[in-house]
Amino acid sequence: MTGREDCARLDAADPLADRRGRFELPEGVIYLDGNSLGPLPKAAPGRVEQVVREEWGRGLIRSWNAAGWIDLPRRVGDKIGRLVGAAPGQMVVADSTSVNLFKALAAALGMRPGRRVVVAEREAFPTDLYMAQGLSELLGGTVELRLVDSGAVGEAIDGDVAVAMLTHVDYRTGAIHDMEALNRRARDAGALMLWDLAHSAGVLPVELDRTGADLAVGCGYKYLNGGPGAPAFIYVAERHQASFRQPLAGWMGHAAPFAFEQRYEPAPDIRRALCGTPPVLSLAALEVGVDELLAADMGLMRAKAVSLTGTFRRLVAAECAGFGLSFFGPEDPQACGNQVSVRHPEGYAVMQALIHRGMIGDFRRPDVMRFGFAPLYVRHVDLWDAVAHLRDILETRAWDRPEFLRRAAVT
Amino acid sequence: MTGREDCARLDAADPLADRRGRFELPEGVIYLDGNSLGPLPKAAPGRVEQVVREEWGRGLIRSWNAAGWIDLPRRVGDKIGRLVGAAPGQMVVADSTSVNLFKALAAALGMRPGRRVVVAEREAFPTDLYMAQGLSELLGGTVELRLVDSGAVGEAIDGDVAVAMLTHVDYRTGAIHDMEALNRRARDAGALMLWDLAHSAGVLPVELDRTGADLAVGCGYKYLNGGPGAPAFIYVAERHQASFRQPLAGWMGHAAPFAFEQRYEPAPDIRRALCGTPPVLSLAALEVGVDELLAADMGLMRAKAVSLTGTFRRLVAAECAGFGLSFFGPEDPQACGNQVSVRHPEGYAVMQALIHRGMIGDFRRPDVMRFGFAPLYVRHVDLWDAVAHLRDILETRAWDRPEFLRRAAVT
Repeated sequence: MTGREDCARLDAADPLADRRGRFELPEGVIYLDGNSLGPLPKAAPGRVEQVVREEWGRGLIRSWNAAGWIDLPRRVGDKIGRLVGAAPGQMVVADSTSVNLFKALAAALGMRPGRRVVVAEREAFPTDLYMAQGLSELLGGTVELRLVDSGAVGEAIDGDVAVAMLTHVDYRTGAIHDMEALNRRARDAGALMLWDLAHSAGVLPVELDRTGADLAVGCGYKYLNGGPGAPAFIYVAERHQASFRQPLAGWMGHAAPFAFEQRYEPAPDIRRALCGTPPVLSLAALEVGVDELLAADMGLMRAKAVSLTGTFRRLVAAECAGFGLSFFGPEDPQACGNQVSVRHPEGYAVMQALIHRGMIGDFRRPDVMRFGFAPLYVRHVDLWDAVAHLRDILETRAWDRPEFLRRAAVT
Repeated sequence: MTGREDCARLDAADPLADRRGRFELPEGVIYLDGNSLGPLPKAAPGRVEQVVREEWGRGLIRSWNAAGWIDLPRRVGDKIGRLVGAAPGQMVVADSTSVNLFKALAAALGMRPGRRVVVAEREAFPTDLYMAQGLSELLGGTVELRLVDSGAVGEAIDGDVAVAMLTHVDYRTGAIHDMEALNRRARDAGALMLWDLAHSAGVLPVELDRTGADLAVGCGYKYLNGGPGAPAFIYVAERHQASFRQPLAGWMGHAAPFAFEQRYEPAPDIRRALCGTPPVLSLAALEVGVDELLAADMGLMRAKAVSLTGTFRRLVAAECAGFGLSFFGPEDPQACGNQVSVRHPEGYAVMQALIHRGMIGDFRRPDVMRFGFAPLYVRHVDLWDAVAHLRDILETRAWDRPEFLRRAAVT
């Protein structure tokens, strides 16, 4: 049995305990949804205000040079690179994850002429599939989107495949894919691997360079704590950059963005993955979130995540038995990202009841309650408290209220 | 002759004079570059701080509903629509101008099957050309980009043309194109007109609906005063929305964005022009800038712009004769947007010397000094002062210094 005191003991011994104070966490809230929107770093409002009042307000157009706005996509990209094992010069911050995925898919097709198959999991994050569909439709249906079962991407990569795209950590189950093995498998088949790091960047050891990853994209507003709609990132391994031609050929990706030439000439480096002008305020906030992660040790973060997921599973199993819950995802915390997913026939309403009490997780159709454990601010006692509420809600059927059963626009 | 007192008299009679106080304008700066980056509205820092501290910090993920983030792209889009003559439900804020142009071009090709020609001016804003080139390359060169001389787009539209794209106000010369005539010309030829409103939205009367425009895109950080890299907008006339299929098929454009369906189904309305998650902080700042413009009368803004451009031309002609300057753009202020462009063989260095003295305009290759006159905060006396400095710089050759002659990264 794990009691609240046991949890408190684990927290007292947590070498990352002091990190929690770096974030604004509203009183009465236990935030287990950093995998949808990371909380506000306390350093962010000041930095954003500085960008707004000083750099925009006083510097005006001069800040593109004087405040370094022009270098922000690369500067913050390189910082995110440090979190995911990418040497400098291979990552930029730009656009949204979806848009970056489109760039990467389109470029990958060009890098593998004659191959027209894109492999993805049927249960991939939907917008990733949508972008592939949009690209295929634009190309007159000449691209085959080969959808396979979860975990079957590797075996689906054959000599017809240009690129396989995969979320490193499954957004539903938390299962971690074997990046090294899949990179090797793709390489052996002459295909490219495109990773979506939305649920791993910043909280899980990722080694893009060492494992031989080709392409990657990811999200700024989840575990990177970059704020709502923070811009996303894209990685192109150095060895591929010369052949990486992406169709969103905007001025920021031009070899000479200020020459106003009529003909697009891609930058010789990772900047060719850029398109239009970046949203500087949002990008500045993202940098603060990334800095918070860089200040922590990834090994410690991973160890704590393993402890949190294991603890949560144990607590749910012990406290909530008999209420129709089932786990959805790897039993072994080492095989799982920073989340535990729990299914319940009325999962939506149960999650609404939890949120009503300030225990914020999220819900994914059809019946998945998802609890995310960002190691910098989630404590073991938070999990104990959340599970106590979960048990109470199930026991008293507190979820069975019209306002919880009605599905809201955003869940 | 126009003296400084004459300018001051015009300012004293300016019905928009009180608007200037709504913007942060640093002491010692005369800002004639609102067409590159609008200045900071005084209301923006407070609003951004509210979004950061309250909506993000306290509301966390709940703010997608509770703070209305999910509706921001349409809400701010409809507001911009009011500035450019678009009834609600035809415009959203999303991505960058370049990305929106890509969406519109790709959709236009789909809406005109069998036609593969895109018409544009050879001297169009470069990134617009780049995006068309990127799309054409992605489509295997099956799209013909027909580049024509400035002002020749109308006559180039024939039965092979799917879409003609044109900047409503030429970014170099300020010349205003006849939107109504070109829309008619395109319609008669069965083609579509795609307008880039980067230099007209918010300061020039634009009538997208009344003139029968098909598609439009535009920029949030110029005259809309949305802040550095503010997201852009896209307009799809209501009659075209059902057939508008754009390839950047992200989750925000899905008919049921929270259903997590595997198959992309575009929203039945303008939301199908959306792609990924919008940068909320930047979008919130943009709304403030747009609100400032909505609070002013467009007719008064236009009248003042005409007065400012006419005054500036008169002053330059009178004060700077004999120094090798020449005007670049329409002589008639009524035919000109909110800018006057002046050429000089050493235009780059002259502009650097002006900026050094706090008179901020910008430079466009090869030799164009561009002065923009946003009617809400530029005064006639500012123009007098700027021209006095211009004259002095030319007279004393103050521009002839190594640090001005050297071309910086951003001009």
